Amino acid sequence: MTRIIAAEVVDVRFPTSLELDGSDAVNVDPDYSAAYLKLTTDEGPDGYGLVFTAGRGNEVVVAAIESAVALLPDENLDELLSHLGEVSRALVHDSQFRWIGPEKGAAHMAAGAVLNALWDLKAKRAGLPLWELLARMTPEELVEVVDFSHLRDAITEAEALDIFTRGQEGKEQRIAELKQHGYAAYTTSPGWLGYSDDKMVRLAKEAVADGFTLIKLKVGRSVTDDIRRMQLARAAVGPDIKIAVDANQIWEVHEASEWINALADHDVYWVEEPTSPDDVLGHARIRREVSPIKIATGEAVQNRIIFKQLLQAEALDFMQIDSTRVAGPNENVANLLLAKRFGIPVCPHAGGVGLCELVVHFSFFDYAVVSATQENRVIEFVDHLHEHFVAPVSVVNGRYQAPSAPGNGAEMYPESVQRWAYPAGAGWEELRTTGQIGSVASS
Amino acid sequence: MTRIIAAEVVDVRFPTSLELDGSDAVNVDPDYSAAYLKLTTDEGPDGYGLVFTAGRGNEVVVAAIESAVALLPDENLDELLSHLGEVSRALVHDSQFRWIGPEKGAAHMAAGAVLNALWDLKAKRAGLPLWELLARMTPEELVEVVDFSHLRDAITEAEALDIFTRGQEGKEQRIAELKQHGYAAYTTSPGWLGYSDDKMVRLAKEAVADGFTLIKLKVGRSVTDDIRRMQLARAAVGPDIKIAVDANQIWEVHEASEWINALADHDVYWVEEPTSPDDVLGHARIRREVSPIKIATGEAVQNRIIFKQLLQAEALDFMQIDSTRVAGPNENVANLLLAKRFGIPVCPHAGGVGLCELVVHFSFFDYAVVSATQENRVIEFVDHLHEHFVAPVSVVNGRYQAPSAPGNGAEMYPESVQRWAYPAGAGWEELRTTGQIGSVASS
Repeated sequence: MTRIIAAEVVDVRFPTSLELDGSDAVNVDPDYSAAYLKLTTDEGPDGYGLVFTAGRGNEVVVAAIESAVALLPDENLDELLSHLGEVSRALVHDSQFRWIGPEKGAAHMAAGAVLNALWDLKAKRAGLPLWELLARMTPEELVEVVDFSHLRDAITEAEALDIFTRGQEGKEQRIAELKQHGYAAYTTSPGWLGYSDDKMVRLAKEAVADGFTLIKLKVGRSVTDDIRRMQLARAAVGPDIKIAVDANQIWEVHEASEWINALADHDVYWVEEPTSPDDVLGHARIRREVSPIKIATGEAVQNRIIFKQLLQAEALDFMQIDSTRVAGPNENVANLLLAKRFGIPVCPHAGGVGLCELVVHFSFFDYAVVSATQENRVIEFVDHLHEHFVAPVSVVNGRYQAPSAPGNGAEMYPESVQRWAYPAGAGWEELRTTGQIGSVASS
Repeated sequence: MTRIIAAEVVDVRFPTSLELDGSDAVNVDPDYSAAYLKLTTDEGPDGYGLVFTAGRGNEVVVAAIESAVALLPDENLDELLSHLGEVSRALVHDSQFRWIGPEKGAAHMAAGAVLNALWDLKAKRAGLPLWELLARMTPEELVEVVDFSHLRDAITEAEALDIFTRGQEGKEQRIAELKQHGYAAYTTSPGWLGYSDDKMVRLAKEAVADGFTLIKLKVGRSVTDDIRRMQLARAAVGPDIKIAVDANQIWEVHEASEWINALADHDVYWVEEPTSPDDVLGHARIRREVSPIKIATGEAVQNRIIFKQLLQAEALDFMQIDSTRVAGPNENVANLLLAKRFGIPVCPHAGGVGLCELVVHFSFFDYAVVSATQENRVIEFVDHLHEHFVAPVSVVNGRYQAPSAPGNGAEMYPESVQRWAYPAGAGWEELRTTGQIGSVASS
């Protein structure tokens, strides 16, 4: 009988704020961080999960993961991994723990980390990358994975079963196609708000040379800056490359429409997070007011219930699921079902620490079994911090290659985890010694 | 120069699950708990804040409060307390910390605890109960308190200033009236789902004898049980007492309408939390489908942006603000403004640990300066755990008496905090020794 014999959670932070990597109108100085969970087993592979954060607050998610792990049933591993839908529902709806959500914030992200680690174990024990493990489950098994609570006015178990059953047709061909050709990526690397115009233009040209057909710029600090940057980027990439913009929630609802329409002459493909991620009605109003410019959102959407409403309210054109904000693969399968039900393409959010590694699995699974199309679908790619991962994503000529290593992609090198453990890791100590950060670490 | 010289956070839990106090369709076994913050100053009174939770997870909020306190500016106390609006915005929108919300879950509740403690200090230093401190602030000072971000499509600073300015007229008379006559309360004490029919009926009769004109029953486990309990309660209290019911989020959207309409013959006043607190559109649909039965919600509404949408979507009849879920008095002043703007009565959520003590201040302030009416307005009262508070609420003949002690009401007796500190307090040790709980505390 294999069991989980230890759960270790580490506060890992990278000093990205020193370079303004990841800077936007709201996230002005992120230290890309991970609350990193290792589930050690007494036999066979270990399981890894993580929650991406922006630095301060990572320690709260670490505490939340420790608490969420304690809620797992005391079962042998095969038993535990055989009913991960039930496990996810027990975690998410724990009669006491749920109060500090429900289904949102640090506690919900922590449940996601635990579920990510359990799915990592399940996939590794099956010898499959997570996307392929999911793709090879039966329709009935997939329905069991999902928490349908508060979704059933939009999609029921029976409708989900029907979607998964129809998804079996042509599945093997799509899996083969994914393994051969991968899945389209787009890149945000040129567009951080803290970058100079020169750096942005240089990186935009490099992105096109690297085969990307869609790039994204951060906007929202100054409308004149945004217009200038759009013009420079458009000149740099030419008319055939799509340019999306991302406001990272900065605008009021009416302000968003005015600002976006001021950019309308410059061929904006989508506007991302125009206002608060909580504001379903605000997104719907903005979408009506800026059409035909498209609206994308999702990286900060707390759970499937908000996605359900965004879809019901016709508030978005692209659904940007995130791999570590919601309750793990279970909730992202629910999100894919919702998108299919409403006919909206899923274009996942990635970047940060490990988000690319984790999220690609859902788009690959989506194509194999759920949407069965890649039309108008791209996965975000940011070329930061992949070197810390044991099985980093590979993007070739603008396309994500199919993950082939068993697991979910969350496993980092122990040396990286140790070096960037916060605040006492050697990396942080060196930054203090060399005066690049203050001698007293802020938490 | 007075400063905050220490911040101590204690995990306080009461073993209420042993008696099924507080049990409902979702919260089946709560241990009413508080993540309890003390801000010690080097001169004058100390400040207290808390976050109510249901037990497990309280330790996560403790960690979050410790992190939120660290974000406070290093200023002398008079300076700090002179611009609590700015302080609240800095806490809530911290460029890194916000990622683990934004504005929701443990981190947001933690910001609320810190702000509650700062307002406690401000009120104590002014020698006033919080409600009266707020009522005596100028309209301009009150506008500064509020975070209008992502609200301005519903209410602007100028509109808020107008509301507060109009609220000055007759203010002194309303303050005097509040001090003389208090504010109507209603009680949930009879209605917990874990109570027997006999206990429920006995407590319902006692509630009427105590002067309450509205009682509330928990529902949602079985429709036949709910009909029987409604009949018994109605027989016990007679036709003139209002009976509200509370489903605590248990239903799917379509299920809610069916269930509520099955109770429609039994004169239900309002239905509380019929579905997920995140589901604005769901609440709006349910309200349309069960009219004229009224919809109430709010205790689990994460922030002002969700309240804004519930009001915009005409999704509720009563707005049930909570004192420790949102970002402190600052965000609850915003919530009162929204309710005023849309003409919806505020009937606060209370109970738990200290929620009555904290929340009454907002209804008293609302009457003094914002809504200027008490029509259709009641404050929840649950007669549990008040003995642990230094200035407990007083309810006489069904009415909350005006708090008169300086501060916000959050201060507990040190002996209570020490005795019920979790897991090592003497109260918990005694429960283990006497076998009432297991020997190994679950966290």
